[in-house]
Amino acid sequence: MSEQKVYLLGGYQTDFARNWARENKHICAMMREAYEGSLRTTRIEPADIKAAFIGNFAAELYCMQGHLGAFFVDFDPAFRGLPTSRFEGACASSALAVMSAMAHIRAGMYDCIALIGVELMKTASPAKGGDYLGTAAWYSRESAGVEFPFPKLFGKLGDVYEERFGLDDTYLAQIAAINYANAKLNPNAQTRDWFMSYDHACSKGQYNSTVSGRIKVTDCSQITDGAVCMYMASAPFAAEYARRCGITLESIPYIQGWGQTTAPMEFSAKVAESENQPFVLPWTRKAITDAYSRAGLKDCWDLDAIETHDCFTTSEYMAIDHFGLTAPGQSWRAIEEGVIELGGKLPINPSGGLIGCGHPVGATGVRQLLDAYKQVTGTAGEYQVKNARRVATLNIGGSATTNVCFIVGK
Amino acid sequence: MSEQKVYLLGGYQTDFARNWARENKHICAMMREAYEGSLRTTRIEPADIKAAFIGNFAAELYCMQGHLGAFFVDFDPAFRGLPTSRFEGACASSALAVMSAMAHIRAGMYDCIALIGVELMKTASPAKGGDYLGTAAWYSRESAGVEFPFPKLFGKLGDVYEERFGLDDTYLAQIAAINYANAKLNPNAQTRDWFMSYDHACSKGQYNSTVSGRIKVTDCSQITDGAVCMYMASAPFAAEYARRCGITLESIPYIQGWGQTTAPMEFSAKVAESENQPFVLPWTRKAITDAYSRAGLKDCWDLDAIETHDCFTTSEYMAIDHFGLTAPGQSWRAIEEGVIELGGKLPINPSGGLIGCGHPVGATGVRQLLDAYKQVTGTAGEYQVKNARRVATLNIGGSATTNVCFIVGK
Repeated sequence: MSEQKVYLLGGYQTDFARNWARENKHICAMMREAYEGSLRTTRIEPADIKAAFIGNFAAELYCMQGHLGAFFVDFDPAFRGLPTSRFEGACASSALAVMSAMAHIRAGMYDCIALIGVELMKTASPAKGGDYLGTAAWYSRESAGVEFPFPKLFGKLGDVYEERFGLDDTYLAQIAAINYANAKLNPNAQTRDWFMSYDHACSKGQYNSTVSGRIKVTDCSQITDGAVCMYMASAPFAAEYARRCGITLESIPYIQGWGQTTAPMEFSAKVAESENQPFVLPWTRKAITDAYSRAGLKDCWDLDAIETHDCFTTSEYMAIDHFGLTAPGQSWRAIEEGVIELGGKLPINPSGGLIGCGHPVGATGVRQLLDAYKQVTGTAGEYQVKNARRVATLNIGGSATTNVCFIVGK
Repeated sequence: MSEQKVYLLGGYQTDFARNWARENKHICAMMREAYEGSLRTTRIEPADIKAAFIGNFAAELYCMQGHLGAFFVDFDPAFRGLPTSRFEGACASSALAVMSAMAHIRAGMYDCIALIGVELMKTASPAKGGDYLGTAAWYSRESAGVEFPFPKLFGKLGDVYEERFGLDDTYLAQIAAINYANAKLNPNAQTRDWFMSYDHACSKGQYNSTVSGRIKVTDCSQITDGAVCMYMASAPFAAEYARRCGITLESIPYIQGWGQTTAPMEFSAKVAESENQPFVLPWTRKAITDAYSRAGLKDCWDLDAIETHDCFTTSEYMAIDHFGLTAPGQSWRAIEEGVIELGGKLPINPSGGLIGCGHPVGATGVRQLLDAYKQVTGTAGEYQVKNARRVATLNIGGSATTNVCFIVGK
């Protein structure tokens, strides 16, 4: 079957620096604000929207609220009756919403779908929030009674790199510094006004305390409240939308390739499986190479930028070789050579990523996709990668259990 | 676009009378048992399965575990890397998994998908469980501080019927008695060994206490631990499967029609909206009529049975007129005339439904679909509807917020 193109029509990201818990606003208000913002940044009208798909990790825990899909219906009288659904795959929740929207569009079921990724996390104390995040792993085996399970699991990812290839933590500090630096150019980034430097990221102690193992505060992504709303559409709808906007269909980005895999849940099982393989996380690698092959890419050098899932500096370190910027285990070379910096040969996380822009868990997959859209349409403002024509995203859930990669281009 | 048929290849339901919390088993073990059972009841092999979609309402609350989709990967070495996803729409969670599986198959993305609906609920006390279920409604407005929010909301549904059309509660008692009677024929029904009679369902007091308003214990569906695994496939896969089984493609059921709608979240908004309309829940009605029209049905009399969402007797009372068995508000006629009984003109819930068979929330949509499959393949055993060729299912989430209807036939 010849695959139908699925187009991206832009969207809106809330300011990730806001604290919605302190603003005393319901998660529904955050979704609504993302939706209403998207009406201003696109020329989508309520009557265009045929379904709404919501990615969210754990509003049940953070907000004592399930059934998030249904809230969309309240946003406009035109939405009464609209099909809605909620998708969950831990930190990759909204990438799964994207996958399903793509399927519904290609199946001819809906021609324009609203996608919202959302998470309200600041309702919980750091300890409680860490425990909630533990449900993204195998809770009873990996998280119960562990103060911060995810820094521990992604610390171990660094340990595996150290054992197999060697790892100098100053490269992790550079990853942190680059993400924070990029975030300063992003008006929606959570850390845009925070002080950060490579020296600070290298430091250890009172002002950069250890969270778990080799993971220090500066190695971590943020606890973030945020939502993103964007639109996906069929080719006929995109063509009509292009006419409405006075642009050509060719100027609208579409999903050129995708890859989705699931690795065994437990991190120890992942590592055991990859023992004698070149890549530490072979299923993450496969999601990427599947996306490359569906998009007809030779390798990563056909890309102009990457938005990857840097929940910790170690996960970005992993992404560098898994995307193929270097041979396995040699990610430090791309860092040392400036390849991944804004202005480098293949910038990673021009937005600031999860470390700099923020990580509202269930929103991240759609946020990455919206940033890819902005890059390839030349609308990323100060964090624009020059002449970006093709951008990859990688959203991972759990300890790289769910892996979803998209290639966005025109 | 001509719509591709999506076939159902059978599956397996766990015994809904079991108490998995008391057995001290993880929700993953329940999913696994449903999956392994499905290998015995179908001729599906692990290598056939290209993706696994899991419907679950709130394992985060009941089991402190998210990311349920990923557990599937552990069930067989062949599943390493398999795309997985989890779907949530309150009590209609697994119907949303079915919708998405249908979309992926029709889009040509996967040719055979494993579907699991699962809920482990007996981990929580009745009060705590009632509170968790409250997250399926607008928690802060409808559930917080309310002892049992859902009996209250569905009691109000009865009140609306009473105000608009008149309602004699003995008809609700008959609905309960019929569901319990049917459940006695279902070897997987939770209540198959329970005492129940019409007189008992009519009684009120020490042995049939009031839960909220007009809702007594006998008007309620059960708190149930259970999982169901079944398979959906493309036409080419189903044809190959038919050859493997020595049967014809025409003997394999497929989804003939579907309807999916979302009503406003709050029950009061639903009722206000339908004030001057013939149907109390117009969006539930639309999900049904959309399914009829996609399946090319004239009306409900083209059906041989219905598996509906009787979370309370009032929701089945609503389903009777919304499916069109009677004029709006006249559901009592179909009850009085024996239409909905096993052996009647259009049996409802031959399985026993949510009241008799049980209601593991996130499993119910797939359980209904599996029962529809059993009916149209003549494999429903003692609760078989004679010569059933076409069966409808209705799965609702929240106070009839998410509504999904399927028509299954050959």
